[in-house]
Amino acid sequence: MSSDLQNTVALLTRTPAVLGTLLRDLPDTWTRRNEGDGTWVAFEIIGHLAHAARADWMPRVRTVLQFGESQTFVPFDRAGAEREDPGSSLAQRLDEFARLRSDNLDALRALNLQPADLERRGRHPSLGSVTLSQLLATWAAHDLTHLHQLSRVMAHQYRDAVGPWSGYLGVLQCAGHSS
Amino acid sequence: MSSDLQNTVALLTRTPAVLGTLLRDLPDTWTRRNEGDGTWVAFEIIGHLAHAARADWMPRVRTVLQFGESQTFVPFDRAGAEREDPGSSLAQRLDEFARLRSDNLDALRALNLQPADLERRGRHPSLGSVTLSQLLATWAAHDLTHLHQLSRVMAHQYRDAVGPWSGYLGVLQCAGHSS
Repeated sequence: MSSDLQNTVALLTRTPAVLGTLLRDLPDTWTRRNEGDGTWVAFEIIGHLAHAARADWMPRVRTVLQFGESQTFVPFDRAGAEREDPGSSLAQRLDEFARLRSDNLDALRALNLQPADLERRGRHPSLGSVTLSQLLATWAAHDLTHLHQLSRVMAHQYRDAVGPWSGYLGVLQCAGHSS
Repeated sequence: MSSDLQNTVALLTRTPAVLGTLLRDLPDTWTRRNEGDGTWVAFEIIGHLAHAARADWMPRVRTVLQFGESQTFVPFDRAGAEREDPGSSLAQRLDEFARLRSDNLDALRALNLQPADLERRGRHPSLGSVTLSQLLATWAAHDLTHLHQLSRVMAHQYRDAVGPWSGYLGVLQCAGHSS
């Protein structure tokens, strides 16, 4: 396995445990509140990660390897978890995400990707031609985007409580950035 | 213990394990690179949290309780860790942070703070009059600011690797925000 792929797998392996350590049995103040209308709570963020583990990353890896640029990736539904699995608990979603991620990484390792494979190209429905290497790097950066979002959603709940310190806390100045 | 203080303690209790789960034995790509000149790597972020555990939070709690607004808090040196303890490893800093945080929370619980205590006031060298409640909320939000920062510093290392996906990843649009 290339060192870039080893770095990616090292992060992907840790994410479920990081999120579980942070969120399991944490009081509702932190996990059941969002940043305002149309924004996500922790429950939705973990559901989105689990949904992506089913519908996004490994299916796209396989599409690149089997079809190259001749078959465009199936568009990913960012809110798919709420349509498919609206009734689960946060703990259930954390368990499911951990199980799916473990299965995903077993499947990824089984592909035994070589450097030449990482340069193979697929077709994204909006972005056009992309490499397998870019897809795998995005998988890891996507975990970090949601850890970044989650820390911001949680800090938002203390926006008033911190009083005059709010100007010193970078996370409270963050506007989100996701489209 | 008030529910607000329980929420704060619940988060403060988890942070060392969250950071340890994410960072221990993670490849250097993620932990030894920063966002450019004058910015921090993971090693410096954990050092800063450990330094604050020694020099900032509980000393200020005690100053409020003992002296109220009559004694201004000792200014906190944000880069103090690099002057006091430059040679330790990331693993040593994670261990030290976990030990100090545990000691801090034991000391906080031993104070058996009551609702009236949380309204007591101290004096911040720049912000002026602040309440103990605001100080304790800031302690938790400060953990989240650095989790937010750490996820951004790590994602920065994949800024080029993700190729055209960079515009979709909120964490890569984040400019930092801390003063």
